Amino acid sequence: MEDHIRFDREQCELHLLDQRLLPTEERIVVCRTLADVVEALQVMVVRGAPAIGVTAGFGAALALAEILRRGGGDWRAAYDAALDVLAAARPTAVNLRWGVDRIRRLWRAAGDMDAAALLERIKDEALAMQAEDIAICRAIGRAGEGVIGDGQTVLTHCNAGALATAGYGTALGVIRAAREAGKRLRVIADETRPFLQGARLTAWELQRDGIEVTVACDNACALLMGRGMVDVVVVGADRIAANGDTANKIGTCGVALLARHFGIPFYVAAPLSTIDPATPDGSAIPIEERPADEVRCLGGRQVCPDGVPVYNFAFDVTPAAFISGIITEKGLLKPPYATTIAAALSA
Amino acid sequence: MEDHIRFDREQCELHLLDQRLLPTEERIVVCRTLADVVEALQVMVVRGAPAIGVTAGFGAALALAEILRRGGGDWRAAYDAALDVLAAARPTAVNLRWGVDRIRRLWRAAGDMDAAALLERIKDEALAMQAEDIAICRAIGRAGEGVIGDGQTVLTHCNAGALATAGYGTALGVIRAAREAGKRLRVIADETRPFLQGARLTAWELQRDGIEVTVACDNACALLMGRGMVDVVVVGADRIAANGDTANKIGTCGVALLARHFGIPFYVAAPLSTIDPATPDGSAIPIEERPADEVRCLGGRQVCPDGVPVYNFAFDVTPAAFISGIITEKGLLKPPYATTIAAALSA
Repeated sequence: MEDHIRFDREQCELHLLDQRLLPTEERIVVCRTLADVVEALQVMVVRGAPAIGVTAGFGAALALAEILRRGGGDWRAAYDAALDVLAAARPTAVNLRWGVDRIRRLWRAAGDMDAAALLERIKDEALAMQAEDIAICRAIGRAGEGVIGDGQTVLTHCNAGALATAGYGTALGVIRAAREAGKRLRVIADETRPFLQGARLTAWELQRDGIEVTVACDNACALLMGRGMVDVVVVGADRIAANGDTANKIGTCGVALLARHFGIPFYVAAPLSTIDPATPDGSAIPIEERPADEVRCLGGRQVCPDGVPVYNFAFDVTPAAFISGIITEKGLLKPPYATTIAAALSA
Repeated sequence: MEDHIRFDREQCELHLLDQRLLPTEERIVVCRTLADVVEALQVMVVRGAPAIGVTAGFGAALALAEILRRGGGDWRAAYDAALDVLAAARPTAVNLRWGVDRIRRLWRAAGDMDAAALLERIKDEALAMQAEDIAICRAIGRAGEGVIGDGQTVLTHCNAGALATAGYGTALGVIRAAREAGKRLRVIADETRPFLQGARLTAWELQRDGIEVTVACDNACALLMGRGMVDVVVVGADRIAANGDTANKIGTCGVALLARHFGIPFYVAAPLSTIDPATPDGSAIPIEERPADEVRCLGGRQVCPDGVPVYNFAFDVTPAAFISGIITEKGLLKPPYATTIAAALSA
């Protein structure tokens, strides 16, 4: 499952598996321009923090190629503006800015290089980011698989899987690594309203890998935990603050608080690129509000009366105090996170 | 909003507003036989514990009328069996059994009365149960409206409204009574997966009454509470054990645990008929598991991959320790519930 983000270097095209149509349809969206990539990010053809970071790298290549095709004018000013537009496509995932910043650093280091040569360097860099992301996910898996015991049931929320990364996944990478280590395990996937990443994506990719998975509505969490049906929780992250507070898909904080109540360990699995040392704590993380129709309409059917407003916050923030550990490619970080995160970032 | 359960005495027909089609379509299902009523209960044309109890009364009338139409045989044995079938239509709501038991008591008290005369008595009784239910809801409203302060926001889960009763509602009755007492208030309706009673029904009936309501996905609860957007929670109940443990729509227990974490009062509003003194505590309450397709399909669209199983527990049990008070037609019961419930039932 590494072909859902595929870059055609010759044509300078980005081929994205349209995650909105899963699990019933596998259709590819082809991006050729900056606007194509921004739209794909905003409507969530592609989603998941690390996947967004990798997409940003390819988007930066597409944006420069587009400027070159147009020709004329000040390409540097145009590209600078294009990278700003790309970085602003979605507000919460720090990986988007991280991906764009990495391209900016490359550009600065390249000095006076002409645009055509720079484009080839950016393509190299974006492909390297993709390969690195898969390697990082495998490292996260190795670092975290010990949190899952043989015969255990893991609950996860949203999709922090291969589809949310360049491949293998973060939370699902931990699960895959535990399986590869020979452990028998079962997964409960929260369906994850409103976008249903758990029901549609997590269930789909685990089933493809032959890992036993059962879907539950988000609101079944307390019942399942209360009946002893959940041994450990592993989720991904969209942004981790310097103190360990973690923004992830809406509902994660509730799962963490319930896990604490029922004495169930709760782990976050994420690459170090998800950590934003410039964000001191969760209160400083902007929470994206998404279109009301994601909640109001289900499969084309309207489920709220006309004129009734809805809340559609896309993320929430889990306080660090409710996180048993943060699993990164440099190992399992334990509290106090301010110290262990700083050490991991400077290592 | 008292015409969603309408009994046509002449024709001995029960006219039910099909709650599955709300909020976009208002269609009436006409029941003429026991099988019609059992199916309407099972597929949830009508739902909500008190509404189920009232429907049971009318269903008992329809069942006897059907036996009379068929003629021949031992009508008493046939009716006894019919009442058993009716009482078993759904397992969790104690009101269904309560409604059937009330008809059985009437029948026993009627002694040797012939079937035609008994039918008229049962019609009287069912209509009385309907009228009583509305009166009880209004009494619950008066008893509970004090838990909502002026200017507050009330979160509710599922639909414990007019549609869930003969009219006015239990949890929504408390909200309506607070409004009638002149308080300004806002409601947040959890959408309540999988059947979406909050998005479809609670939002619909509050909007009709001009009460400000916003819909949120169930998993937004921790974010909304953490941001101080919820002042008080009021929910209904499907069965209350002798110690106060309360079975209600799946997700209620999670809301209660989060409310406790955030220091938000959590109230249950229900008629005394919802209390089952024969059930010592929540562990003795059977939890209905409903068809997987309620979770797997949304608006006709399949959201889980083929072959992936789902959990679809319809209810969960909130421990009495997390309930600030139980609002009944005989007043607001406070802990220790074993004592206050027993007193209310024997008063």
